[in-house]
Amino acid sequence: MKRKIHLYMLHFVHLLNQKSRMKTEIISIGDELLIGQTINTNASWMGQELAKIGIKNNRTITISDTEEEIHEALKGAESYADLILITGGLGPTKDDITKKVLCDYFDTELELNQEVLTDIQAYFKLRNKPFLETNNMQAMLPKACTVLRNSMGTASGMWFERNGKVFVSMPGVPYEMKHLMETGVFPKVKETFQLQELAHRTILTHGIGESFLAEIIMDWENRLRESNLEMAYLPSPGLVKLRVTSNTGDTNKVNLFCDELYQIIPEYIFGEGTITMEETLANLLLEKNATISLAESCTGGYASHLLTKIPGSSSFYEGSIICYSYDIKEKELNVPKSVLLNKGAVSQEVVEILSEEIRKKYNTDYSISISGIAGPSGGTEDKPLGTVWISARSKEKVVSKKFNFGNNRERNISQSAVAGFNLLRKLILMEEK
Amino acid sequence: MKRKIHLYMLHFVHLLNQKSRMKTEIISIGDELLIGQTINTNASWMGQELAKIGIKNNRTITISDTEEEIHEALKGAESYADLILITGGLGPTKDDITKKVLCDYFDTELELNQEVLTDIQAYFKLRNKPFLETNNMQAMLPKACTVLRNSMGTASGMWFERNGKVFVSMPGVPYEMKHLMETGVFPKVKETFQLQELAHRTILTHGIGESFLAEIIMDWENRLRESNLEMAYLPSPGLVKLRVTSNTGDTNKVNLFCDELYQIIPEYIFGEGTITMEETLANLLLEKNATISLAESCTGGYASHLLTKIPGSSSFYEGSIICYSYDIKEKELNVPKSVLLNKGAVSQEVVEILSEEIRKKYNTDYSISISGIAGPSGGTEDKPLGTVWISARSKEKVVSKKFNFGNNRERNISQSAVAGFNLLRKLILMEEK
Repeated sequence: MKRKIHLYMLHFVHLLNQKSRMKTEIISIGDELLIGQTINTNASWMGQELAKIGIKNNRTITISDTEEEIHEALKGAESYADLILITGGLGPTKDDITKKVLCDYFDTELELNQEVLTDIQAYFKLRNKPFLETNNMQAMLPKACTVLRNSMGTASGMWFERNGKVFVSMPGVPYEMKHLMETGVFPKVKETFQLQELAHRTILTHGIGESFLAEIIMDWENRLRESNLEMAYLPSPGLVKLRVTSNTGDTNKVNLFCDELYQIIPEYIFGEGTITMEETLANLLLEKNATISLAESCTGGYASHLLTKIPGSSSFYEGSIICYSYDIKEKELNVPKSVLLNKGAVSQEVVEILSEEIRKKYNTDYSISISGIAGPSGGTEDKPLGTVWISARSKEKVVSKKFNFGNNRERNISQSAVAGFNLLRKLILMEEK
Repeated sequence: MKRKIHLYMLHFVHLLNQKSRMKTEIISIGDELLIGQTINTNASWMGQELAKIGIKNNRTITISDTEEEIHEALKGAESYADLILITGGLGPTKDDITKKVLCDYFDTELELNQEVLTDIQAYFKLRNKPFLETNNMQAMLPKACTVLRNSMGTASGMWFERNGKVFVSMPGVPYEMKHLMETGVFPKVKETFQLQELAHRTILTHGIGESFLAEIIMDWENRLRESNLEMAYLPSPGLVKLRVTSNTGDTNKVNLFCDELYQIIPEYIFGEGTITMEETLANLLLEKNATISLAESCTGGYASHLLTKIPGSSSFYEGSIICYSYDIKEKELNVPKSVLLNKGAVSQEVVEILSEEIRKKYNTDYSISISGIAGPSGGTEDKPLGTVWISARSKEKVVSKKFNFGNNRERNISQSAVAGFNLLRKLILMEEK
């Protein structure tokens, strides 16, 4: 059996907070975030990683990179939170003013940091790139801060403390920020704050809507709330996540209720924590030392992408054919023209031929095929927009199912991929019995 | 020639703001956003769409769904902004309390809205789903608000006005929120606020880092700032976007500087506005009535996904082979075993065979092939982690190029796809000359 990939299988996250209800705020700086040219993935990554080391992010504020806005946000955060994490506005170019505002705010000034300058020069030398005038400024840092060195880029992290509150300023480039958080910020945060326990667990369901789920688990939910636990429904495309929290760190009580849920809705639960459907399937394949191939039509490579995003996926993933056109379905995957014409490309017959042919052609243990009408056009009365046929197959068995994911192209593509993984996951579990 | 897809080619966005510097704030409610279980794509979509109708989003705040936090956020927003858009916390389940806080805040109470109740009942009937007790609550709405009907779901939008300020509360489910914004909020916002002009233009570059770009355009940038224009560098994976803004709505001045940029860095500019590299390529293919196929190794379907995400992509996209394993490269795309062994799968020889074979096999005008070491392991001294070979091909011509995108798997995959599109884009433009 192959080594099981280290997937992020959060069976249980301990959310630890300071006894005095320590609060955390993230300040994201940048017009590109406000006007939607960039999605704020930094804040969600930070929120997730903070939770892992036991700190809840209480508030995120996104602002323009103007002196006034940054100053106001710092003031607001200082009166609200104990730990303030700031990203953005530290690039080498002239439109970045965060450092200046921080100097004003903490009544300090910039000085040349010789170590950082040496780092930056080495950084450019290693990459065979010329050291530019603008990069000099990156070594000018506020006197009052502790500098957090950044080996992934040229903007340093800056750690300020005042009246027991901590402010950390980091660059907005995601991998630089992540690197600084991991190597500099988390270790110092753990040292600085005394943390208290808080418990939560997140149960992941697929194939049932929020209202219907709520109806089924109503009694359970009422008892849970009477027991002073909190619980939230977190819908995301095709999934509903149930997060159960004890603010007093009562792990046993959280476990008791979560375990009971497996009795009430076993058919809908596919995992826990932040694991994805594709990671669940990948783990199953790795456990069985089995391989997979895909024939994708309407998902156009997205399902394969989700699987190959997983580090080490070459252990179980062989390859796919994206058979977008009729021609490729016919010539490369032997779907007879008569079937395409009589049944249509979105039909049980076609997906079953596709899953069989790709499995044989690519010589894998399992396969998934997906064919649907992703939209925005192409629907008929018979097969409305959003109709998707999916087939999952092993050497001995095939299961096929028709879905309708509605009229939004992107949701359609992502829900089809996830439903395909779940169909195969269930087939594998069924075969194990 | 086929109809050019309506891509969102923002050659020029007019950002219009109220004469009195109208301000806008988004309040996103939900613990799932704070702890990173969901990425706040709602706020970025809203920021983008607001910009299109001429309103700048000045601030986004993300908070927990507790009475205290929602109340505080409403108060903070009321003293800061004129238009406040609130999403989240309106689901049918018990953990949603936004409506209650809104009633308190606006000193009003819930009443049954008969029209909404009829809507909701029809909604369930149409979907053949039973009407549940919990859904009744969705028709209970604050007396003091104007109700915005939601035909995509069961949670209504709520429009409040007080002292010339507007508050709109919407559900957090993205497609419901988007639908409400488009059908209810934007029309009313345009009626309510008097808007003034502001001009900006965003130039998209590929293949050059922020520092190097800044060095090359330094003179231009200095002159721009002396002319009272603003400009910002917006880096995203593989790209740097340059946004030029005139706060006084001086379209001519913005155009003058942007047009000049085409003289200074022609080789790096691939588009403007919010168009993506794949959309630029798609437009070129559509103009030429040409087709494309891909052979993807390290990108594992991601490049195909980016192309097929585009509505109408079946007009130019035929299909792909994702040749993750040696076997598939050999058997399906005729890469001789000797070449794989002697040159390695990540080599000019292999990507050139792949692009040739896929183009012939899938009978397309153009093809792209990508093979690299995505990480986190697999690098050698000769070919370090992040090494990627890409080949782009027409009937007559082939260009191949080696890249190194560093040691982050996801960045590697996304940058490889974008670089592949750009390589083919340049080949097509070269052939046109």
